[in-house]
Amino acid sequence: MPLSLNEYFAARRSLLDAALNRIANASGAPPVLDAALKRAFASPGKRVRGILTIAVAESLGVRPEKVLDAAAAMEMIHTSSLILDDLPAMDDAILRRGEPALHRLVGEDIAILAAVALLNHAYGFVAQSHAALRPRRWPLDQVLQRVVSAVGWDGSVAGESVDLHSEGASLDFDTLEFIHSRKTGALFVAAASLGGMLANIHPAPLQRIEVFAKNLGLAFQITDDILDVVGTPEQIGKDVGKDEQRLTFVKLAGVEGARKLSAELVETSLQAIEGLKAPALRDLAILVRDRVR
Amino acid sequence: MPLSLNEYFAARRSLLDAALNRIANASGAPPVLDAALKRAFASPGKRVRGILTIAVAESLGVRPEKVLDAAAAMEMIHTSSLILDDLPAMDDAILRRGEPALHRLVGEDIAILAAVALLNHAYGFVAQSHAALRPRRWPLDQVLQRVVSAVGWDGSVAGESVDLHSEGASLDFDTLEFIHSRKTGALFVAAASLGGMLANIHPAPLQRIEVFAKNLGLAFQITDDILDVVGTPEQIGKDVGKDEQRLTFVKLAGVEGARKLSAELVETSLQAIEGLKAPALRDLAILVRDRVR
Repeated sequence: MPLSLNEYFAARRSLLDAALNRIANASGAPPVLDAALKRAFASPGKRVRGILTIAVAESLGVRPEKVLDAAAAMEMIHTSSLILDDLPAMDDAILRRGEPALHRLVGEDIAILAAVALLNHAYGFVAQSHAALRPRRWPLDQVLQRVVSAVGWDGSVAGESVDLHSEGASLDFDTLEFIHSRKTGALFVAAASLGGMLANIHPAPLQRIEVFAKNLGLAFQITDDILDVVGTPEQIGKDVGKDEQRLTFVKLAGVEGARKLSAELVETSLQAIEGLKAPALRDLAILVRDRVR
Repeated sequence: MPLSLNEYFAARRSLLDAALNRIANASGAPPVLDAALKRAFASPGKRVRGILTIAVAESLGVRPEKVLDAAAAMEMIHTSSLILDDLPAMDDAILRRGEPALHRLVGEDIAILAAVALLNHAYGFVAQSHAALRPRRWPLDQVLQRVVSAVGWDGSVAGESVDLHSEGASLDFDTLEFIHSRKTGALFVAAASLGGMLANIHPAPLQRIEVFAKNLGLAFQITDDILDVVGTPEQIGKDVGKDEQRLTFVKLAGVEGARKLSAELVETSLQAIEGLKAPALRDLAILVRDRVR
């Protein structure tokens, strides 16, 4: 069951796409930047991170509309990182989400500025959701710090730095876990926490949600690595075989080993939320596992 | 009287340098990124924006130590934008603050990631200062939005986009004012506002502080344009003559016209704060004017 065919996720994704579209139309950016932003916002992603924010908030009784700004912010941060990853100085990618990488459409300079703007404004939208919901247990500074850490010098940026400079290095499970837990895991955790904190979650279930998201993020990254080897560009919407020079779980454990590992991680993520009333989170985990079934 | 020779500013700059140094040492970034961050933090800037935050807060009775995180954040945002401006895809600069541009030392990929990390963590430090001071009139979401707007798609990023794509375009005062008010003016205004809001300023004097900062920022940018023409690399610490392909006030009005314009803007900025007890702000304005005397 592909992500797009599940009704719940399709509906949440439509909400997110509409929110991103509204944000893009209201930016007030000058034309040269506006075109790049619209293109970046319209890029057809799976919106897994934003859906995670929404699904966690909904499991706590908060309506999706109430956390849409924050969920959109998670997608903006993710999109920002993809734009940068694709640059010639990084992965030098041609294709992203089935379309030319942004810098190939608007030039490197404007692509970089668009990526910076997306990250920057994401903080504004997190603040906006928080101001609307005012969760008593989680003041805005704590909520922000969670996102800042996930993105920053011990988060995705750290993961990407090590990833770029691991090329040609010897395979090493610890390094790989470092990279993936930060490149993908950290933002998954932040997206899930954000949904929880905005819904005024208690600290104990928040911890469980975070274990869920951490394992799911790692599983998601491994399924991405597998698709890089066994998928076609049409199927996955970006260059395949880009990981040849990189450490991946597939290299470490083979396609079957990686498949098994991702299934185990999904299992761990499911155990973490056992007993919580969160059917959408369970479905999400199963959808991630089934990407490579 | 050069900026570095005024005792007040030299002392504030030392505080800021020490704060940035502490932040760099505590980042926990992986080695490849850590080296780039330390280099970026140690780059000997004038720290005008951070000093502006401190000076405004001090004029309202808040000790510099209390707003150091926020002031450091303004410098991190500024440094982030310099790193990006210097990239081959942008200005392709060789020299910055008397040293090689960051990407020439650590590679483009790590320079871009360092710039992103600096912007990202700046929001964390703004939140940290706010949590320490808790200004009653200015909730964190409002404070953040001020910074987000200054940086983003209607702020510095917008200014830089138009600047990059104005090359070779015909001279036009409105375009130039658009670029400079956003590239430089917006962050000056945000830095000053931030100091005021953290010090729980009333809305009326905040407006005057913002008019002050807006005019001072524009004046500062014009003195930069003048130094690009009349300065030496040793004197100003970066490539000179880089503006040949760009719109500048010097091209529009000549060196003397630009000098006159910057003096007028400084005059306007001084009028805006007339009657406020803020001697350091007045000194700062005079130091900006005297850069090109």
